[in-house]
Amino acid sequence: MKQYGAEFIGTFWLVLGGCGSAVLAAAFPALGIGLHGVSLAFGLTVLTMAYAIGHISGCHLNPAVSIGLWAGGRFPANKLLPYIVAQVAGGIVAGGVLYLIASGKADFTLNAFASNGYGEHSLGGYSMQAALITEVVMTMMFLFIIMGATDKRAPQGFAPIAIGLGLTLIHLISIPVTGTSVNPARSTGVAVYVGGWAVEQLWLFWLAPIVGAVLGALTYKAVASE
Amino acid sequence: MKQYGAEFIGTFWLVLGGCGSAVLAAAFPALGIGLHGVSLAFGLTVLTMAYAIGHISGCHLNPAVSIGLWAGGRFPANKLLPYIVAQVAGGIVAGGVLYLIASGKADFTLNAFASNGYGEHSLGGYSMQAALITEVVMTMMFLFIIMGATDKRAPQGFAPIAIGLGLTLIHLISIPVTGTSVNPARSTGVAVYVGGWAVEQLWLFWLAPIVGAVLGALTYKAVASE
Amino acid sequence: MKQYGAEFIGTFWLVLGGCGSAVLAAAFPALGIGLHGVSLAFGLTVLTMAYAIGHISGCHLNPAVSIGLWAGGRFPANKLLPYIVAQVAGGIVAGGVLYLIASGKADFTLNAFASNGYGEHSLGGYSMQAALITEVVMTMMFLFIIMGATDKRAPQGFAPIAIGLGLTLIHLISIPVTGTSVNPARSTGVAVYVGGWAVEQLWLFWLAPIVGAVLGALTYKAVASE
Amino acid sequence: MKQYGAEFIGTFWLVLGGCGSAVLAAAFPALGIGLHGVSLAFGLTVLTMAYAIGHISGCHLNPAVSIGLWAGGRFPANKLLPYIVAQVAGGIVAGGVLYLIASGKADFTLNAFASNGYGEHSLGGYSMQAALITEVVMTMMFLFIIMGATDKRAPQGFAPIAIGLGLTLIHLISIPVTGTSVNPARSTGVAVYVGGWAVEQLWLFWLAPIVGAVLGALTYKAVASE
Repeated sequence: MKQYGAEFIGTFWLVLGGCGSAVLAAAFPALGIGLHGVSLAFGLTVLTMAYAIGHISGCHLNPAVSIGLWAGGRFPANKLLPYIVAQVAGGIVAGGVLYLIASGKADFTLNAFASNGYGEHSLGGYSMQAALITEVVMTMMFLFIIMGATDKRAPQGFAPIAIGLGLTLIHLISIPVTGTSVNPARSTGVAVYVGGWAVEQLWLFWLAPIVGAVLGALTYKAVASE
Repeated sequence: MKQYGAEFIGTFWLVLGGCGSAVLAAAFPALGIGLHGVSLAFGLTVLTMAYAIGHISGCHLNPAVSIGLWAGGRFPANKLLPYIVAQVAGGIVAGGVLYLIASGKADFTLNAFASNGYGEHSLGGYSMQAALITEVVMTMMFLFIIMGATDKRAPQGFAPIAIGLGLTLIHLISIPVTGTSVNPARSTGVAVYVGGWAVEQLWLFWLAPIVGAVLGALTYKAVASE
Repeated sequence: MKQYGAEFIGTFWLVLGGCGSAVLAAAFPALGIGLHGVSLAFGLTVLTMAYAIGHISGCHLNPAVSIGLWAGGRFPANKLLPYIVAQVAGGIVAGGVLYLIASGKADFTLNAFASNGYGEHSLGGYSMQAALITEVVMTMMFLFIIMGATDKRAPQGFAPIAIGLGLTLIHLISIPVTGTSVNPARSTGVAVYVGGWAVEQLWLFWLAPIVGAVLGALTYKAVASE
Repeated sequence: MKQYGAEFIGTFWLVLGGCGSAVLAAAFPALGIGLHGVSLAFGLTVLTMAYAIGHISGCHLNPAVSIGLWAGGRFPANKLLPYIVAQVAGGIVAGGVLYLIASGKADFTLNAFASNGYGEHSLGGYSMQAALITEVVMTMMFLFIIMGATDKRAPQGFAPIAIGLGLTLIHLISIPVTGTSVNPARSTGVAVYVGGWAVEQLWLFWLAPIVGAVLGALTYKAVASE
């Protein structure tokens, strides 16, 4: 049970910190943190939690990561469902807390609320095909890094830095395309408050990260001859 | 006694570095570091001091951290008062040194002097309720990270990175709401030079971080089954 | 064979991540990551891959690095050719994937596509001579750092941080001059899609990094008395 | 002799990287790295070199650091002069290489060439007194961090991160005041190419960092009960 609690809190932090920095601080007049600051924030949610709960639950915080690690032979199938439930629940509660904070100003408007999107809902106007390729490839490389940095032959203790800053890197590349998901729990956690298009486009941000994660884990196994 | 000296100097550095970057460099014309740079500066004060004095005093630099660690069973009650006195004194001396530097230009005006605030004194115009939620939740997660990263089962030596960059993350999210306190000594260290509203609003930046810190430490204990 | 696969994937990531952040996110309206964000992205491709595949292939991701390490006595001559082929292939495939993504918006124009250049194709209008000096000196210092940080006497496990952030530093300095290569595979991976001037100027981004890499490795050997 | 070579190359990198990022990239139109990027660059020169040559020379790269470590009982007096000569020489050669690169564009003007200054030559118009306080306090805290992070009781291997990012932090705070020296070799390395006011103001950037360094080392000894 404590593993599920850790995944709940960790994913709560990922969504509150990553989407929170986007909603509250990215476009702050004159001094805003921009896409660079949001990228750093997403990565640091994972870096900090990996040191805080890595020894409890492995700190997945992401259904695609759990499924990818299962495909890579690093995670048992019977824990997949409770992990994913805890992650999605943590993400949705985080979206609620963020809503409470963000709505605490006079001129609040919900807008996209950091939801992921494609086509007319892509920040930079990228097509569904570009969004699919981006999310598959980014999640594939994310799992490749996770598998490699947690390999017994890699330096011990550094994986949270590699994985957290890997997520920062992924955001530095791809926010303009999809807002960057690579994580269905992150996408779901805010989309449910926006509804409409955000929920209708959720399928892509479940499908593509999961496909990419499986590809990344299998690629690492092939390259590493595990 | 050397522990109290270390906490005094460390908190001096936190307030001089964090608030100093905000007052001197955040809005520098054209090249300013913005909220992103200020967030990094606050985090690096803790990262650097945690490596420099962690082996002397544990490097709390923050009354809420000391109280949270006490609630979590990691810090003895009889050291709470001298630690907090040293932290607040270090913060106030830092505010004075910053005033000396900042006032050394012809067109100096004090303004908010990096004081924390809510309502009409929130940078982004957020209500008192939003400020309360923000400070409670951010400090709660800060203590959760501190408790986890310093757990015996976590990788050894990396806690200063997790905790320092955790404070950077907290600032990336919440400067627009309250200016980000999560630390009563940081709030007090500059508010006393501004007086008026800054001192009148100090109660929130003592109450909310302490409540959040206790919640965070107890949550970690529950999740970690310590 | 698995070493070559690792170099292929690693260099794929370096070009997709570094050039991808430049093409997709650097100049995003109002919130773009700028040269600072691109510098961080390039460095993080190396940091993440060094933890993920350092134990498989050594994570060179760069023909100049492989040749420099050979000159420094750290890499066997008979692996030079397959490593370089894998690196260039990985870079070119990355350029193709980036093209697929970047072209997925209505108003796409290829422009420089993050190609390196000098003279009229230098971002800041720097001469061929300035470009030559810059690429030689930057790659020389890059190899010096790589040789030193992977020295048996240096702290173990930290080399990916030193080398990755070293590449970030090199970009913070020199993007305005040449767009920063220090890596013939990175230059080639995008130039082939631009053709014309980008391919005609490629000679400099093979010659200068290789010369610099050999100088850097030999300088380290001299200073370190290896 | 190899220690002096390492200090020469390391300080060459500090001045080329730090001042180079300021001269070439800080104010690049629309995409410039600003004071934030320059702060990161200065810190990364030290982080990278500390991993590359820490095991050879201790990686001081700074006359104030060498003198502070001597005052703190960590460095022998008989090596002070050759270390300082190597550091200043490395800084001046770096200034020359930077001049060669920076002058390789049609509209080059020397301007301040990243020289440190006070009064009318302070970036933000700060007085000589503010500059003196800033440089003394910043160098004092720098040496405090160096002494603490390299203490035998601190986590081993992490000192380059604490010290390098400590220099980043110092720049995030104080570039608007003096351009940030805390290092006489860095100030001298570029001032000699500007001449006039830059050389006339050099006295402060030798005096204040050295005074601060001695204070910082002695403070650490007092607090740490060494």
